[in-house]
Amino acid sequence: MELKNDLILRAARGESIERYPVWLMRQAGRILPEYRAVRSKLSGFKELVETPKFAAEVTVQPVDLLGVDAAIIFSDILVVPEAMGLEYQMLEAKGPWFEKTIRTDEGLKYAETNFDIEDRLGYVLEAIKIANKELDGRVPLIGFAGAPWTIFCYMVEGHGSKTFSESRKLLYTNPVLAHELLSRITDVTIQYLKAQAAAGAHMLQIFDSWAGILGTEQYAEFGLKYIDRIANAINEVPLTIFAKGAITSVSAIAKLKCNTIGLDWNMNSVEIRNEIGENRTLQGNLDPCVLYSSHNEIQNLTINMLDSYKSKRHIVNLGHGVYPDIDPEKVKTFIKTVKDYEIQF
Amino acid sequence: MELKNDLILRAARGESIERYPVWLMRQAGRILPEYRAVRSKLSGFKELVETPKFAAEVTVQPVDLLGVDAAIIFSDILVVPEAMGLEYQMLEAKGPWFEKTIRTDEGLKYAETNFDIEDRLGYVLEAIKIANKELDGRVPLIGFAGAPWTIFCYMVEGHGSKTFSESRKLLYTNPVLAHELLSRITDVTIQYLKAQAAAGAHMLQIFDSWAGILGTEQYAEFGLKYIDRIANAINEVPLTIFAKGAITSVSAIAKLKCNTIGLDWNMNSVEIRNEIGENRTLQGNLDPCVLYSSHNEIQNLTINMLDSYKSKRHIVNLGHGVYPDIDPEKVKTFIKTVKDYEIQF
Repeated sequence: MELKNDLILRAARGESIERYPVWLMRQAGRILPEYRAVRSKLSGFKELVETPKFAAEVTVQPVDLLGVDAAIIFSDILVVPEAMGLEYQMLEAKGPWFEKTIRTDEGLKYAETNFDIEDRLGYVLEAIKIANKELDGRVPLIGFAGAPWTIFCYMVEGHGSKTFSESRKLLYTNPVLAHELLSRITDVTIQYLKAQAAAGAHMLQIFDSWAGILGTEQYAEFGLKYIDRIANAINEVPLTIFAKGAITSVSAIAKLKCNTIGLDWNMNSVEIRNEIGENRTLQGNLDPCVLYSSHNEIQNLTINMLDSYKSKRHIVNLGHGVYPDIDPEKVKTFIKTVKDYEIQF
Repeated sequence: MELKNDLILRAARGESIERYPVWLMRQAGRILPEYRAVRSKLSGFKELVETPKFAAEVTVQPVDLLGVDAAIIFSDILVVPEAMGLEYQMLEAKGPWFEKTIRTDEGLKYAETNFDIEDRLGYVLEAIKIANKELDGRVPLIGFAGAPWTIFCYMVEGHGSKTFSESRKLLYTNPVLAHELLSRITDVTIQYLKAQAAAGAHMLQIFDSWAGILGTEQYAEFGLKYIDRIANAINEVPLTIFAKGAITSVSAIAKLKCNTIGLDWNMNSVEIRNEIGENRTLQGNLDPCVLYSSHNEIQNLTINMLDSYKSKRHIVNLGHGVYPDIDPEKVKTFIKTVKDYEIQF
């Protein structure tokens, strides 16, 4: 199906664009009353993730309601560890929770790789197909997966953590096990991302939420090494790497075979552009808290950011997922400001 | 009272040292069975903080048991907001919890400044005096406070958070209120630190635990501005600033009137030394997870770190508080390795 708006794909590839494309991480979610209406009919977050027609419905909502230049499939990075053998629950106040964890060689039995993606993750692929049908080519659809390091953190820790010390401990006490587990996650993630592209995802993004808890050297060894394997394997569609907090590794990420680098709100896009040059597109990175300001201030701060760009290779986004208590009208102001902005060069 | 071991003070001032001094953040705490024995006799964490003889007892324990070159007064950064009018509880699994928060101008009534430090925080000063008596000059005693930005985060948010979005929101929606609250916290913190020095603290450290959630510019405006005021006011004893995660602000911190800069485990001490030169002492920054390794590996990784130093201006520590499940014998290996290390220049 031909895309009526392929701006984000052109921006990712460094091709000519008439304006900057814009979307938001977590745009399909709690900020929209229409999302909460769908969610309230279901038993919980997982039912929504696992029911393709509902997942597709909330995927399309922000395209209709907010006017973003891309949809991102509604899902969760934790579907991968679950498919490998570690079931998770999403607890209301606590977040993700795994009953079993992998901290010993014995635990590797919960890290299967030899299974059919369609068989265990078919519901995501089905949601992609339905969403694309409903989008009818209006905008591209983004698929995604967690980076191996972040998925590893959950498989070892079993839940969120401020320090992820159990996960980091393993890097010292059993690096062989750590590498084996990371390698297995990588294998499955490559298959999963390829399946998403085959199902119709026009772009893919890797989220490394916990990149920032490792120092530069450890992140190279246990993080980037595996993202590099993924990046080399994905040739189907443009790839974005978002390594939150990995401020000292951005130039290393720029050397990987990706199109776009996601920046968090603490990263300085001007300095990074100077450092890495024009070979990669940058995505981000307005502080999500800016959307708590007045409409006027949102407009000013967004224009300030756009004015700071010295290249067209930008996909505009926040530097983190949109916070759940943000007024959708404020999001619209952000989006409208980007769409109305005239690139001067 | 004359100090028998003033190594850490000389290192802080950039004077001659015969070996690197070493201590650990959170050395007085759950890693020690002797700490847990004291703690188990009491109703909770707060009773320990608020009872000078017990606080002093656990302050001295690591000097006896681990052989560190400094003691740090057992207390909590949250005693300051409590003294200002916001009572906190320390919940077992959840961490700190404030019933009231400050999110409006109205809330400023819970941010008092016009009170006597001795009156509301005398228990800390008393603990310092008792600890010094028990230490009998064996090692210096470190006093501390939270940085205004971190204290602000708790006063606004009311509890820990992954994003501290309520606190960051205020920087956009009501910067005047944010600056007023930060300024009040700063005033009290200066008085409190001076009172600690007067009570006998030989060194002072400011902990900015949530520095890393702000970008460089916002941290300059809402973080460093107030630390600068504190640093200018403290002339009594050497001052250390530890801004966790503020990787892009280290060179700005080096320009403040402090003796020592604390580094977290993700910061590269070699690069930072090259950048800031010899005018400041660096403290840190072994990855606390190294202490999960074998004794042999701990020794190797500690020596690697010490070998990387090109200056004597170092106080050795971990890059974060020691994790509660670390074996004290492993801590001893770390400390012994530092003490046995011969500086080659």
